[in-house]
Amino acid sequence: MLSKQMLYNLENSSAIRKMFIEGQELAAKVGAENVFDFSLGNPVAPVPRAFTEALMEVLREEDSLALHGYMNNAGYPEVRQAVADHLNRRFDLGLSYENIVMTVGAAGAINIIFKAILDIEDDVVVFRPYFGEYRSYVSNYHGRVVEVDPQMPSFQPDLADFERKIDARTKAVLINNPVNPSGVVYSAETLRAIAAILERKQQEYRHAIYLIADEPYRELAYDGVDIPYVTKFYPNTFVAYSFSKTLSIPGERIGYLVVPPAMEQWREMANAVTVANRVCGFINAPSLLQKAVARCLEEKCDVDFYDRNRRTLYDALTAMGFRCVRPQGTFYLFMESPEPDERRFVANAKKHNLILVSGSTFAMPGYVRIAYCVSPDMIARSLPQFQSLAEEYGLS
Amino acid sequence: MLSKQMLYNLENSSAIRKMFIEGQELAAKVGAENVFDFSLGNPVAPVPRAFTEALMEVLREEDSLALHGYMNNAGYPEVRQAVADHLNRRFDLGLSYENIVMTVGAAGAINIIFKAILDIEDDVVVFRPYFGEYRSYVSNYHGRVVEVDPQMPSFQPDLADFERKIDARTKAVLINNPVNPSGVVYSAETLRAIAAILERKQQEYRHAIYLIADEPYRELAYDGVDIPYVTKFYPNTFVAYSFSKTLSIPGERIGYLVVPPAMEQWREMANAVTVANRVCGFINAPSLLQKAVARCLEEKCDVDFYDRNRRTLYDALTAMGFRCVRPQGTFYLFMESPEPDERRFVANAKKHNLILVSGSTFAMPGYVRIAYCVSPDMIARSLPQFQSLAEEYGLS
Repeated sequence: MLSKQMLYNLENSSAIRKMFIEGQELAAKVGAENVFDFSLGNPVAPVPRAFTEALMEVLREEDSLALHGYMNNAGYPEVRQAVADHLNRRFDLGLSYENIVMTVGAAGAINIIFKAILDIEDDVVVFRPYFGEYRSYVSNYHGRVVEVDPQMPSFQPDLADFERKIDARTKAVLINNPVNPSGVVYSAETLRAIAAILERKQQEYRHAIYLIADEPYRELAYDGVDIPYVTKFYPNTFVAYSFSKTLSIPGERIGYLVVPPAMEQWREMANAVTVANRVCGFINAPSLLQKAVARCLEEKCDVDFYDRNRRTLYDALTAMGFRCVRPQGTFYLFMESPEPDERRFVANAKKHNLILVSGSTFAMPGYVRIAYCVSPDMIARSLPQFQSLAEEYGLS
Repeated sequence: MLSKQMLYNLENSSAIRKMFIEGQELAAKVGAENVFDFSLGNPVAPVPRAFTEALMEVLREEDSLALHGYMNNAGYPEVRQAVADHLNRRFDLGLSYENIVMTVGAAGAINIIFKAILDIEDDVVVFRPYFGEYRSYVSNYHGRVVEVDPQMPSFQPDLADFERKIDARTKAVLINNPVNPSGVVYSAETLRAIAAILERKQQEYRHAIYLIADEPYRELAYDGVDIPYVTKFYPNTFVAYSFSKTLSIPGERIGYLVVPPAMEQWREMANAVTVANRVCGFINAPSLLQKAVARCLEEKCDVDFYDRNRRTLYDALTAMGFRCVRPQGTFYLFMESPEPDERRFVANAKKHNLILVSGSTFAMPGYVRIAYCVSPDMIARSLPQFQSLAEEYGLS
């Protein structure tokens, strides 16, 4: 009945969603207030008031037929120009509206990039740990995922392993910065090294190898850390961006992708991803949302909200004896499992009503992901549970 | 640089968009008021006031985090229930919210259905003339399009040809009712015959053959014609619906698909298309739009607006000696080209500043499509141009 591809997708269906559902089942049994669900990356910092006002203004001010009608499949030119201006102001990139394609979120952006560039059995290189949905996106185009190991304990990519993993079949390298699930931020040094390796490999294999920077967490960064703009390091770079986390609006599916002017044949590529937007069935990013985000490009949610959660949780868990990667971005904490099989640890945590996600989902067994996009109150109430879990493992 | 798939898509890129761009170039030369652009199916009947009010109300009334946040990938349960209730009231279908998946328009719906059911080299049967984008959607999943001829002059499907075209590789049959580009409405008799053939073929080949009804034009029907609900004729039917034409909001990308309770293993299939919504990168239909359409399911644009255009244009063109399929739905008129090569006719029409779309785009050479979703004034001003074109061909 179902296609082979779909059976693959169902078997590998999101372990994150699965844990979320287990958490809900547990809540039905023991009461929602007694379950500490750290599974889902659903933003909880309030939606900026300016976003709601922008939607209202657009609805009041614009002609409704033009507002809700078809436009170029790349989006409204004036919205794309506003995004280009915003990025130029912040990062000095020399973009025009023609370098911007408005997309159905970052997931839509990554899919239309793959549609434009991936042939069957092309390789896409990813860095462990990584967001498991990347496997689905690559398999949509019958590509193959090739995994690169992290350096420990920094969780920056192991560059020697990266260089080894690139061969004639490599069409693209997909990075996520800041990284879901580790919360690590790739430094300028890391990006410079990645770029140098890719430049060499392009020469060696005589074809373009694209770097795709998936940046939905760009604005969720802490300790004043700098998140370099990747197109500055390597010309054949696409940037996929989403407003989901920046504005706490993941249900709205609005983002954009950047095809920088330094990319080889960038006009052909911008045209190709635009056609891909249409033929993949997205057609265009939702029109009202395009107009609304264009009016609040300088806005973001209360990032300090997540930062406070980050500090509370990191400090408490490490004090209990857990070992965590210190996150500088995203709203995730990546914690080492006190026993080698982290799935057993996840199951034990659940007995303490703690809902965590297994690192295997992110191709990183031995770790668990804790999404701290939750209320500070829930974190405070969860700490005694983490404490008894730590004691169970003899950590403190 | 580009994938083979993408090169195919670019070569076969939308001839409709191409004519639209040619029209814009002509307008730049001779003035927009002198160009009669009948290329694009962009709704022009005003957006119902109730839709704008629904958006405003939702923004005022609902908690912004919940409103713009993630929900089940199938959509908000209460929105899906509202759609189910609406359809049950009108067509007595016995649907619950579990039979409805909110989608990024009908294009999104068709793509996730194909993702769920199509294996490489499966056949999808379509009826000429048909919307050319279907070729892209099928090719996204490496399926093959198999074309069935129409009966002439009714433009109902040739059922004998349909039966011949189904074989062991047939996984799905995709119909569009009312039909873009012919404006024809498939009768209950036609649907009953299609269903009977499919039932026999399912028996013969011992696997499910799915009927997919693409129904964005359902509400644009004239002369009181009945558009039967296809799930009543054949259990293994998906219905893909869009609010684009009903509410004049094609830029917003909001629609739904129906997995009826009579479909074999409908729960597994509903789950599969929901997962497909996620893995294809749609994730979910835009959340604000879901909430807004749920509040105006009984609304539609001024269908009489299109009906008046239809009558004016049909009556005038046939009086001039052109031969047209009499449309009972959509906002398209399908006209026979007075010379066998309709692309030459399209080129000649352009000399009269008339922008039409070649029937070859719809796999129906010898015809042209005229989109009458334009101002009545433009139609009135275009008639002398059609008249001189008719005279050029010695029709009147």
